[in-house]
Amino acid sequence: MLVGRAGCVTGVLVRGGGVAHSGASYHRPHGAPIVPQSTSFLTPAGNIRVAGQADGPLKGLTFVAKDLFDVAGHATGAGNHDWARTHAVPTQHAWAVATLLGAGATLTGKTITDEISLGILGENAFDGTPLNPKAPDRVPGGSSSGTASAVAQGYCDTGLGTDTGGSVRVPASFCGLHGIRPTHGRLPLGGMLPQAPTSDTTGWFARDASTFARVSSVLLGEPITAALPVRLVVAVDAFGFADPAVEAALKPMVERLASLVGAVREDLLAPQGLSVWARAQRTLQPYEAWLTFKDWVERENPRFAFLVARNLALGSMIPASERSWASLMRAEARARLAYLVPPGTILCMPTTPCVAPLKGRPIPELDPVRDRITCLAAHGGLTGHPQVSLPGAEVDGAPVGLSIIGARGGDASLVAVAKAMEKAQ
Amino acid sequence: MLVGRAGCVTGVLVRGGGVAHSGASYHRPHGAPIVPQSTSFLTPAGNIRVAGQADGPLKGLTFVAKDLFDVAGHATGAGNHDWARTHAVPTQHAWAVATLLGAGATLTGKTITDEISLGILGENAFDGTPLNPKAPDRVPGGSSSGTASAVAQGYCDTGLGTDTGGSVRVPASFCGLHGIRPTHGRLPLGGMLPQAPTSDTTGWFARDASTFARVSSVLLGEPITAALPVRLVVAVDAFGFADPAVEAALKPMVERLASLVGAVREDLLAPQGLSVWARAQRTLQPYEAWLTFKDWVERENPRFAFLVARNLALGSMIPASERSWASLMRAEARARLAYLVPPGTILCMPTTPCVAPLKGRPIPELDPVRDRITCLAAHGGLTGHPQVSLPGAEVDGAPVGLSIIGARGGDASLVAVAKAMEKAQ
Repeated sequence: MLVGRAGCVTGVLVRGGGVAHSGASYHRPHGAPIVPQSTSFLTPAGNIRVAGQADGPLKGLTFVAKDLFDVAGHATGAGNHDWARTHAVPTQHAWAVATLLGAGATLTGKTITDEISLGILGENAFDGTPLNPKAPDRVPGGSSSGTASAVAQGYCDTGLGTDTGGSVRVPASFCGLHGIRPTHGRLPLGGMLPQAPTSDTTGWFARDASTFARVSSVLLGEPITAALPVRLVVAVDAFGFADPAVEAALKPMVERLASLVGAVREDLLAPQGLSVWARAQRTLQPYEAWLTFKDWVERENPRFAFLVARNLALGSMIPASERSWASLMRAEARARLAYLVPPGTILCMPTTPCVAPLKGRPIPELDPVRDRITCLAAHGGLTGHPQVSLPGAEVDGAPVGLSIIGARGGDASLVAVAKAMEKAQ
Repeated sequence: MLVGRAGCVTGVLVRGGGVAHSGASYHRPHGAPIVPQSTSFLTPAGNIRVAGQADGPLKGLTFVAKDLFDVAGHATGAGNHDWARTHAVPTQHAWAVATLLGAGATLTGKTITDEISLGILGENAFDGTPLNPKAPDRVPGGSSSGTASAVAQGYCDTGLGTDTGGSVRVPASFCGLHGIRPTHGRLPLGGMLPQAPTSDTTGWFARDASTFARVSSVLLGEPITAALPVRLVVAVDAFGFADPAVEAALKPMVERLASLVGAVREDLLAPQGLSVWARAQRTLQPYEAWLTFKDWVERENPRFAFLVARNLALGSMIPASERSWASLMRAEARARLAYLVPPGTILCMPTTPCVAPLKGRPIPELDPVRDRITCLAAHGGLTGHPQVSLPGAEVDGAPVGLSIIGARGGDASLVAVAKAMEKAQ
């Protein structure tokens, strides 16, 4: 989809030829919403092109990279205007960038991200909010906001994101894309800006399942066969936690999935509580993020949107006793998912409990939305299991994704399900 | 003094004709200190001139106003790049600006401030750090940093600042100026950006005591007579708290003061503890500041330097029980100063426990310095008594001020002492 709803797209998109950065992000008339409105998904310096190898399995495909991935010779901006000028320009491509280039795909830009990946909604006070073409009045989701926007707008075929606490899965859900958070620890993360290393992953997006499978095969390093899982667990706690309209919208997809897989049963994802798992992740991840960025923050006193700085500061204050508890809960969550989703089984659940919230809302409105989204995303960072968000459902025209979760290492099987689901439509 | 130490001044100063904003604040080579280095004290839009009345007691004088004071027709920037675009351009002058203009002084610029007055050192991540001409490698002090710098560099004769927790007194001490924090509640604060209303005051600076007295007479609305206080209290806890070198440097000034005043005794400023008073002020002031800025912050999610955002966020979290305690301690401090400094008595103490810290230091180094400075500044906001910082001492070439504190309403008497002290040199 090149262009969203009429009247909401003001940028000029030229497929394969780059997109003009809107530029008009910082000055607005008094009273206009603060979040810079932008159809652009590229960073100010992100309109770059690096040709892929002449031949390879991804020949002819284009991709963008979230501005957390190093591209040799170009500053990594990380969504914060004090990052690039305090870090050296990388001399090597990130592993994921090099892998896609080596497989024949061409890089066509670097994309907007929430500041140093700290955000789940995709509103960046420096670079603007990339357009969600499926729901132009709503956020695209983050932190891989620009990549999701670029893929959803049809600017490129695929794109790289990162997912620590939901940063690929949430924008995939909100923008109606295929998106994967691979098994934690499976892919090399060299040249990707870390946030919380025990949760960090590299993920990617595509509009259609066959492109998604081509890219997945290259990055996972294994073929996507036709073999499907044989058992499906429907996470009743997760469906019950979602908006009723989301649950209803996803029902036909669950039925299609059930008919593909065969044996179906209902169970709880998190017997201890989705909110308890979320609490554990929100204890471990922000503290780890603080450790990742502490030296830079304390040395440079960088500028952040208030919310980002506030959350970093709160992360720094999480006491050891809370972190100890959260580590134990992580062990419980890991045991639960290993039991619930052995090889050959997948679990399904709503990727997000709601469609994308409206853009430019005040902090007291967004905080509870973010907390609620985390309840359905926290298992990813906690357990490291792979997850794919599938497009195909909408509530009042805004997309919402159905997620499937597999055994650790079962990433390819999830992608095979994505192909079968698209075919079964 | 127009120009500080050789090699440290790169801007071009044209007395009365404005000063070029350095502009080069945001881009720096990798590895250079983060705090933008600047000799300019004017804000990016602050190179303005508003002529005063043709005649009046301040005829011929020039002044600058901290960018927290409204000047009709010019946006108030408040040291934060998201403030002006989210607030209407004022249509009236602030009371203090109008009063100086009405008395014949001419406004020659708006000056850099710590973001929304939240800072005591004068390092602004957006507008740069104004030059401290007396100690170019050190901060000017804040939050009235630009005004202090402009007056100290000789760009103007006087200038307006604000003092909630030390924002006139500290830069006066660090830049070697006369500076006053008047009795709380005495001057109208219309058109001045509030921070913590129970502590906020409008203050001003001058290089020499006679200019200081002329301006003070206009703003206080009473003549500065030759009558001096008759009793001096030397605050032994405050001197003991200061660096030994500061205590030694101030000793000749204390002796001169004693010889002017007559009866001298030593006593404690804060029997409960300077650190306890500081704790009370650091409980009341940041919470009040949060209440002042909460709606704007939550609606606009503005960009701040990390430290500013962190401190706002910490302010928001101060519990009611702590605030109740701090209010009781404020009552104790008020009772103490009313007893210690009745009319006719002044108290003297170091304005700051140290000279200005070096510029561009990391947060973990600055936090304890700031806390320590607050121990000698907290009584101002807590009690509302007037205080004047007198120049005249140095440690290794860097200035440090001697403060005198009077009874509430005794502001003019403190200015009279300043004149007598200068004469007695």
